[in-house]
Amino acid sequence: MIRVALDAMGGDNAPAVEVEGAALALAELAADFSLLLVGRPEAIEPQLAAHPDIDRSRISIVPATEVVTMDDKPLQAIRQKRDSSLVVGLSLHHEGKADAFVSAGNTGATLAAATVILGLHEGVDRATVASFFPALPEPILVLDAGANVDCSARELVNFAHLGALYMRDVLHRENPKVGLINVGEEDEKGNKIAREAHLLLRAESRLNYVGNVEGRDIVVPHPEHGPIDVFVCDGFVGNVVLKFYESMSTLVKALLERDTPELLRSPDLRPLMKFLDYGEYGGAPLLGVRGVPIICHGSSTAFAVKNAIRMAVESVRTGLNAHIAAEFAQHDG
Amino acid sequence: MIRVALDAMGGDNAPAVEVEGAALALAELAADFSLLLVGRPEAIEPQLAAHPDIDRSRISIVPATEVVTMDDKPLQAIRQKRDSSLVVGLSLHHEGKADAFVSAGNTGATLAAATVILGLHEGVDRATVASFFPALPEPILVLDAGANVDCSARELVNFAHLGALYMRDVLHRENPKVGLINVGEEDEKGNKIAREAHLLLRAESRLNYVGNVEGRDIVVPHPEHGPIDVFVCDGFVGNVVLKFYESMSTLVKALLERDTPELLRSPDLRPLMKFLDYGEYGGAPLLGVRGVPIICHGSSTAFAVKNAIRMAVESVRTGLNAHIAAEFAQHDG
Repeated sequence: MIRVALDAMGGDNAPAVEVEGAALALAELAADFSLLLVGRPEAIEPQLAAHPDIDRSRISIVPATEVVTMDDKPLQAIRQKRDSSLVVGLSLHHEGKADAFVSAGNTGATLAAATVILGLHEGVDRATVASFFPALPEPILVLDAGANVDCSARELVNFAHLGALYMRDVLHRENPKVGLINVGEEDEKGNKIAREAHLLLRAESRLNYVGNVEGRDIVVPHPEHGPIDVFVCDGFVGNVVLKFYESMSTLVKALLERDTPELLRSPDLRPLMKFLDYGEYGGAPLLGVRGVPIICHGSSTAFAVKNAIRMAVESVRTGLNAHIAAEFAQHDG
Repeated sequence: MIRVALDAMGGDNAPAVEVEGAALALAELAADFSLLLVGRPEAIEPQLAAHPDIDRSRISIVPATEVVTMDDKPLQAIRQKRDSSLVVGLSLHHEGKADAFVSAGNTGATLAAATVILGLHEGVDRATVASFFPALPEPILVLDAGANVDCSARELVNFAHLGALYMRDVLHRENPKVGLINVGEEDEKGNKIAREAHLLLRAESRLNYVGNVEGRDIVVPHPEHGPIDVFVCDGFVGNVVLKFYESMSTLVKALLERDTPELLRSPDLRPLMKFLDYGEYGGAPLLGVRGVPIICHGSSTAFAVKNAIRMAVESVRTGLNAHIAAEFAQHDG
């Protein structure tokens, strides 16, 4: 049994959404996992009661009295809220009582807590948050997605390895293609760090690196390389593009509402809107730490929480963590 | 009469598209300008002949035997192709024989040539390329859009002033709102340069600075500040987001083709596709130099060339250049 610790108090609508996501996951996914709901039992129990069909044999509640809020400063939260669902959940994971951890709480605090409590893999300088983007023909992974606004070229290379292993293990993409987000394809393009990262990436024999790519190649197949699986950039660029893309659904809706409102209500439009809706995609893996933490958007739906649980289970099932450890050990040797 | 020098040899389909754009501009815009078509007369004349209705009294051809190509290195092109349409056209502008210059040629070469030939305004450290983004309720301006991949905080402040003056004069936006593209709204967000730029911008009494904004606030009105007119960022971020946005039209078309092809051919969809089509928007003003150079995409349509001519005329008509000179003189004093 794979044991996933779920921060029941994390998201904007906790614990209702988390419990509903747990119920969906237990009902719909392969039955090789159990869930530890971490948080205030008195808040969780009534939500569980609202799902009478839920398989209680695969759920346990682990009490944690405190909650890290979106306004808490990351390091302060870890130090001062030791009985928070975040710290208790990650500690369970660290102690081997859980195999993965999922939270829709404060991203900065989760990143900091995961780094402190789980520790980094040897050879990894920094943990990174990877984000899925809806893309054609299939979702792609962008990292860093906002955790690290300044990155060295070396760190960008690490992100490339982490992202490639993730896409191989969890999304079963064979030999995933990696691109470096830049302002042009030529070797001399970009700022100092991008130019240096491009040269380092090109020298990495264990990566399927296609080269510098541009903003237009992220969610539409590259004209020469075809679809690319992993896009590497610093967290400033990643975060701006991620949030820009998130606004496309709002933009398209508002435009149609203004110009052709009848089209907005046409069932023909649903596939497009569903595609652009980030709520469908679930969690963002936090990579580089010894463990499997998955971060969800604070406004995640139950569907997204279910998807995050699925990602967590798949990461454990495929041995992602051991593969990352081996990759970086080999790298240093 | 406002005299606009048009690089007839710049774009991918030169000079056909440039001449067609000139014909559209002469036919549709207010008749207070004339055009100097700069390039090879033997290539331009047959294109003019294809537009028998064109008002030849408002067109003159200025011969230039060479062409700067997209592959030419900027500084080399300026030095070695002294009789190119780019160098000849900008020289006409510098000598006061033209009031503005429009080109769909090599962006890097145009930026370098404009900086060298026209010179920078006093107090401006660097020229910048500003790009219009289709947005709700109206287009917005992002600068830098790719010319300067590394920027100091001071340069970002200059971009803010240049963009605000442009939007005020040319798009007649009163007291344009300026935002700094960042990864969050709080003062401490971002990398070192963004944090410093935010503090400097906040202290600028002559700017309507709304603060740090996120990727999601660029093309959709900000939930608190409403629509923002000018977005400031370094050219790395600006270029990636610009090209990402350009790919949205391809993405939407491909998605609809896959899922609901009948919808793709519905006339109801036209306003959305037209909105997302960058070809409609025309030129990117090159700001900070003493003059009015406008850069168009190499693949510009005649419609885009016409719009660029309109922007050039409007910039001259409203005295943008003198306003920029005055703003920066005041600033230094």
